[in-house]
Amino acid sequence: MFQFKLLKKDASCGARLGRIHTTHGEINTPVFMPVATQGTVKSLIPETVRDLGAEMILANTYHLYLRPGHEIIKKAGGLHKFMNWSAPILTDSGGYQVYSLGAFREIKDDGVIFKSHIDGSMHFISPGLAIEIQAALGSDIMMCLDECTAYPASFQEAEKSLALTVNWARRSKAAKKNHGQALFGIIQGGIYPELRLRAVEDISKNIGFDGYAIGGLSVGEPKEEMLSITQLTAPLLPDDKPRYLMGAGTPEDIVACVDYGIDMFDCVIPTRCARHGLLFTNHEKVVIKNAQYRDDDSPLDGTCDCYTCRNYSRAYLRHLFMAKEILAMVLNTIHNVRYFMRLMDRIRAAIRDGRYKEFKNSFLAGSNTVIGQQTSIE
Amino acid sequence: MFQFKLLKKDASCGARLGRIHTTHGEINTPVFMPVATQGTVKSLIPETVRDLGAEMILANTYHLYLRPGHEIIKKAGGLHKFMNWSAPILTDSGGYQVYSLGAFREIKDDGVIFKSHIDGSMHFISPGLAIEIQAALGSDIMMCLDECTAYPASFQEAEKSLALTVNWARRSKAAKKNHGQALFGIIQGGIYPELRLRAVEDISKNIGFDGYAIGGLSVGEPKEEMLSITQLTAPLLPDDKPRYLMGAGTPEDIVACVDYGIDMFDCVIPTRCARHGLLFTNHEKVVIKNAQYRDDDSPLDGTCDCYTCRNYSRAYLRHLFMAKEILAMVLNTIHNVRYFMRLMDRIRAAIRDGRYKEFKNSFLAGSNTVIGQQTSIE
Repeated sequence: MFQFKLLKKDASCGARLGRIHTTHGEINTPVFMPVATQGTVKSLIPETVRDLGAEMILANTYHLYLRPGHEIIKKAGGLHKFMNWSAPILTDSGGYQVYSLGAFREIKDDGVIFKSHIDGSMHFISPGLAIEIQAALGSDIMMCLDECTAYPASFQEAEKSLALTVNWARRSKAAKKNHGQALFGIIQGGIYPELRLRAVEDISKNIGFDGYAIGGLSVGEPKEEMLSITQLTAPLLPDDKPRYLMGAGTPEDIVACVDYGIDMFDCVIPTRCARHGLLFTNHEKVVIKNAQYRDDDSPLDGTCDCYTCRNYSRAYLRHLFMAKEILAMVLNTIHNVRYFMRLMDRIRAAIRDGRYKEFKNSFLAGSNTVIGQQTSIE
Repeated sequence: MFQFKLLKKDASCGARLGRIHTTHGEINTPVFMPVATQGTVKSLIPETVRDLGAEMILANTYHLYLRPGHEIIKKAGGLHKFMNWSAPILTDSGGYQVYSLGAFREIKDDGVIFKSHIDGSMHFISPGLAIEIQAALGSDIMMCLDECTAYPASFQEAEKSLALTVNWARRSKAAKKNHGQALFGIIQGGIYPELRLRAVEDISKNIGFDGYAIGGLSVGEPKEEMLSITQLTAPLLPDDKPRYLMGAGTPEDIVACVDYGIDMFDCVIPTRCARHGLLFTNHEKVVIKNAQYRDDDSPLDGTCDCYTCRNYSRAYLRHLFMAKEILAMVLNTIHNVRYFMRLMDRIRAAIRDGRYKEFKNSFLAGSNTVIGQQTSIE
């Protein structure tokens, strides 16, 4: 079962309020999906992820295919049961990880050969196999295998890459059997508006999917390119299907792209930043290792309702981080995920109240981004 | 407030059932204290530790003195508040860590000079300072600074070391001011019965404390020496005070030493083994990385009531461990701590029912220890 209801469009801009119905429950959009790369939102038990407000998570097909293997997960009753998460799951196709992690890859018409980042073993993945793996995982939303166009890429390269993605999208749809799972198409085309338009035409009109993702962004292009391509592409997609901006983003990116009509986001930023001691608050971004927090008895964010802010001081969080304690990662992740979930609450409330443009302008004016295109947090 | 009530002595052996009353609550003995070295039971939030059945934890003065510093914890309102743990806490004196972690140490009559394992800085700790630090931490039970006699040590060396420990015990008692905190003396004397008898005489009769610890064991001596010294020493201690065997032990050590009249235990085994993927069950010890668990859909221990056993398969636990996920440490720690807490439940029930000897014999006969004197789990 998969259904998307568009509940409201903000009159002042492109922002949309919606609801996705799946076999594993409802998702209120705009939604942010915490990332559970290897079948766990790093450091948290699933009940905590749910309590923080997450309605859907993303898991990575590439990682789970290599380890423990999709057959093991299938035998265990699917990914929901394996990882003890009963709410909806979106799985990517593995295409992006082949592109970003594969030490060796060779792209052929019918799929891609890649080398495992774990043990160097060679693998071949086709659009059909990507569907088969995701069917074994039993995710609620599957993604088509695509080629993530590199940045920079010439028009000709991007055009050739797009043709492959469209071809694979067709094969992916043909390979899909289980009607309980939705399948999303991916719009590629690099930074070329003409190609993005063509991709929308081919993927959404000529083939047709349950939802559409904008891919190939946040891969090294300037932030303005990411924003302008999203602004151009999103409104061209069918109104009655969810729109997903893959791999985005910072709080500022999310707030900006909701305005362009994006309904779904996923990003490792809240979880990865947490593990590196970078914490989001409504007032400032806190680098918890800084000496100024040594004896700071105040909570991380006095306006936050999360377990971490209700029970611990900045001094204790700094102590745990400096002492390299696992609990530092747990408490920091709880806070950052909750920050993103509360941000989505505020976004949905603003759309509901018809004041999204105002919310966006105010948020972006007050924002003090420390994670820009140039800030590596690896 | 500190009070110990001896509720029952098993007629068949030396096992005792008791209850310790402190300002932060009651502790049922025999008790096992999970170790919170740096102010956190590694990987767990304190509510989880409590839910697992822990009534008291141990924190390390040496670590907290060096980082974040006891003054910071005092300013925060004490260790209970700093780490969000409202039940009783025992702090050691730092003596053992100076002995085991200090890269350099020089023992003088009035204290010990040591080098921080964190940054190489030099420090001097005296019996009085150890009390001052523990008073700042605000623990429910403080320990006297002692010299942990090395193994092997000649009789003369052990005798000299004991004299220093007795001297420091006297100074520790004199330095104690806060009547809300209990202070335990430590019995040293190496593997020499004559010295252990002398230590009991000096520490418990001539000076007198709120409770007594047996120290200087599990430092490299054969397991039989540890057991025989404990068996010799424990019954000599006053009946109306709690007896604490420092740094023990394996489930088998605990079961054996309860028979000798020990009331309190602490050890890093459940938490450290968990992080290394060694899991205790009632049937076997599970090395979770073993390939046999690859697709094993059964719970770690079908007879265990912990969150991990109720919600996850061995296959998932193996996957998390192989993928080096933080959640592996969390779920494994939950199980191992719960195993130790259930063991203590069984021990107390057996004493209550007057069948401890039988329980002990049955437990030790069925035991399949993998952690012996020779098994390093570092």
